[in-house]
Amino acid sequence: MSGAPVIDGLQCGRYDRELIERMRDGGLRAVTITASFWEDALETMDVLTGWNDLVREHPDVALIARSGADIDAAVATDRVAIVLGTQNSSLFNDRIGFIEHFWDMGVRIVQLTYNIQNAIGSSCYEPVDTGLSRFGREVVEEMNRVGMIVDLSHVGERTSLEAIEASERPVAINHANARAIYEHARNKGTEVLDALVAHGGVLGVCTYNNIAGDYAATLDGSAELVARHVELLGIDHVAYGSDLDPNSPADNIAWMRNGRWSRKVQHGASRPDIAPPPEAWIDNFDFHKFGEVRDRLVERGLLSAAEAEQVFFGNWKRMYDEGFAPAGATQQEETR
Amino acid sequence: MSGAPVIDGLQCGRYDRELIERMRDGGLRAVTITASFWEDALETMDVLTGWNDLVREHPDVALIARSGADIDAAVATDRVAIVLGTQNSSLFNDRIGFIEHFWDMGVRIVQLTYNIQNAIGSSCYEPVDTGLSRFGREVVEEMNRVGMIVDLSHVGERTSLEAIEASERPVAINHANARAIYEHARNKGTEVLDALVAHGGVLGVCTYNNIAGDYAATLDGSAELVARHVELLGIDHVAYGSDLDPNSPADNIAWMRNGRWSRKVQHGASRPDIAPPPEAWIDNFDFHKFGEVRDRLVERGLLSAAEAEQVFFGNWKRMYDEGFAPAGATQQEETR
Repeated sequence: MSGAPVIDGLQCGRYDRELIERMRDGGLRAVTITASFWEDALETMDVLTGWNDLVREHPDVALIARSGADIDAAVATDRVAIVLGTQNSSLFNDRIGFIEHFWDMGVRIVQLTYNIQNAIGSSCYEPVDTGLSRFGREVVEEMNRVGMIVDLSHVGERTSLEAIEASERPVAINHANARAIYEHARNKGTEVLDALVAHGGVLGVCTYNNIAGDYAATLDGSAELVARHVELLGIDHVAYGSDLDPNSPADNIAWMRNGRWSRKVQHGASRPDIAPPPEAWIDNFDFHKFGEVRDRLVERGLLSAAEAEQVFFGNWKRMYDEGFAPAGATQQEETR
Repeated sequence: MSGAPVIDGLQCGRYDRELIERMRDGGLRAVTITASFWEDALETMDVLTGWNDLVREHPDVALIARSGADIDAAVATDRVAIVLGTQNSSLFNDRIGFIEHFWDMGVRIVQLTYNIQNAIGSSCYEPVDTGLSRFGREVVEEMNRVGMIVDLSHVGERTSLEAIEASERPVAINHANARAIYEHARNKGTEVLDALVAHGGVLGVCTYNNIAGDYAATLDGSAELVARHVELLGIDHVAYGSDLDPNSPADNIAWMRNGRWSRKVQHGASRPDIAPPPEAWIDNFDFHKFGEVRDRLVERGLLSAAEAEQVFFGNWKRMYDEGFAPAGATQQEETR
C-alpha cells in the first residue's frame, strides 16, 4: 500500500513550498487547512489571498481543491490539493449571504464554532450548550445549499446533535475522537456519533496528544486508535484528521486558545490538572507517518487494505466529492 | 431588427423582478449594473448578496453573467443577464488580492476611479491628474490576469491614457462620449479615444443629458449621437451605455455625487453655470427605446443593420466574451 494517496482531514499550520513538498513526498494528496480561527470576513479574505498567492506561485506542487475532481487531478499529477477550511464561522460576519461569497472564493468546509459560543451555537467548552441557534439553522441550510461541508470538531454536544439533524447532507467532525474511547471535552459523545453515522457523516480520528492520550504516543497506539473507531462507527465513517500545525510561530497556540476574547490564560484542550500526555508519535516533520499508520493497520490484520485506504483516503474523498458541490448540481454545474 | 437582443453597457438603478421583466420585454438581454460607487469590500459584498438573492429568487427572468456564454444563455432563454460592475475601485480595500476574490464572487467590470482621486489614479473632475499610480499599475495588471474589464468612464484623461497603455487587454469606457462631439469634463478627449481604439477598446455612447446635451433629447438626436461616434471611432469600437438609474430613491443622486467625502454640495456632471439640458428621450421607464434608436439608425441609413446590431449588442458581447475570461483561459477554464 506504500505510495497510495493520503488525505489529512485537518491541519492548522503555516504553509510554504518546502512544507508542501514534504507533504507531497510523504504521500499526502489533499489536506484541509485552517484559514481562520477567529478572523472575520476581511481578515479571512487576507488569509485566502495568501493561499491564492502560494498556489499561483507553485502550481507544480499545489492546487486549491474546489471539487473532488481537483483532488483526482492532484493524485494524477503528484501534487497536494489544498482544501480551504476554517475552524470557526467568524468569517461570515453573521451574514447568511457571505456563505455563498466564501464558497465562491473557494472555502469548502466551515466548523460552526471554535472554543467559545457564537451566534450559531455553543462550543465544547461552554458550561451551557444552547444548541443550534436560529442563525445556526439558517447557516446549516445555506451551507447545504451552496456545497460547503459543516464541521463540528470543537462544537458542543447539543449544538452538534442539532446541526446533524438540521443538515440535509452528511457532516464532518474532522479532528476529534469518541469519548467512549478517550474521555475529553473536545471529544464526542455516543449520541452525537450515532447521529453522525446515521446521517452519513465522517469522523476524523485525531492523534493530537491532548485528546488521544497514550494512543497518540506510538505507531501502534495510533493504529489502535483508528481500529477502535472503526469498530465503534463502521468503516464508512472513520477517516483521519491530524490537527498538526507545522511551521507555526511560537505564539500560535496562544492565538488559537485566547484569540481576542480573553486576557486570562486559556488552556484549550490541555488539562493542567493532570499529567501531560506523552508527545504524539505523528508529528510536524515526517508526513510519511500517515501511510505508516495505514500500513500498520493492515500488517496487524486490524483492517484490510481496502478498509485502511478508506480511512486514509476514500472516506474523505467520498465526502468531498459530494459535499463540495452545490445541492442538486450535475457534474457540469459543480464549478459554477 | 425588432426583437434583436440589446446589451446596455451601464446602469445604476435598484432592481427588482418587475424592473427586470420590463427590461426583458424591452429587448435587453444583458445589463451592466453598478454594485458600488463608494462602498468598500464588505459593503460591496452586501450589495452582491442582494444580487445573488434576486437571481436565486427569480431564475426564470435573470442570471448573473460570469462569462460570454452566460449571455448566450440569456438570449436563448429570453432572460436578462446581469453583468456585475462597479463605478469605483473602492471594493478592493486597496488590496491586490481582493481583485481575484471579487472576480470569484462574479464581478467582471471595475471602473478605476469615480469622481475623486483614489489610490489608483485621478478622476475626470480633479484639477490635477496624477496619471496611473503604482498601485494603479498593479491593479490593471491583476485585472488583466483574472479577467476583469478595466473601465474608465469617470477617470481623468491622463490616468485613462496610462491605463489603456498599461493594459494588455482592451478596456471599456462604458458610459461617456467624445469631447469632440460634446464638450464636458466627463467626456473623453481625442488622445484617449485614439488610444482606446488602437488597443481594441469600446466606448459606450451615453444619452445621459448632462453629458450629451440636445442629442439626448430626441430619438433622432440619440441616433445621431451614435452615428457620429461610429464615424469618429469606427464601427468596432462603439456601443451603448445608458447610465439610466431606474427605481432609484430620491437621495441617490446626492449619494453618487457626494458619497461620504464631502459635506458641500457636489454637482457631479450637472453644470449650474449653464441652462440645464432637456430631459433625455431614453428614460427609466421604457426599455423598448434602445431598440428604437438602433432601428432608427438603420431606417435613416446612418448604419447598416449589421452595424447597428454591433453597437447595440455585438461590440459589448465581443468584449465580454474575451474580457471575462482569465488570461490564457480555454473554454473549459473560463468559469474556473
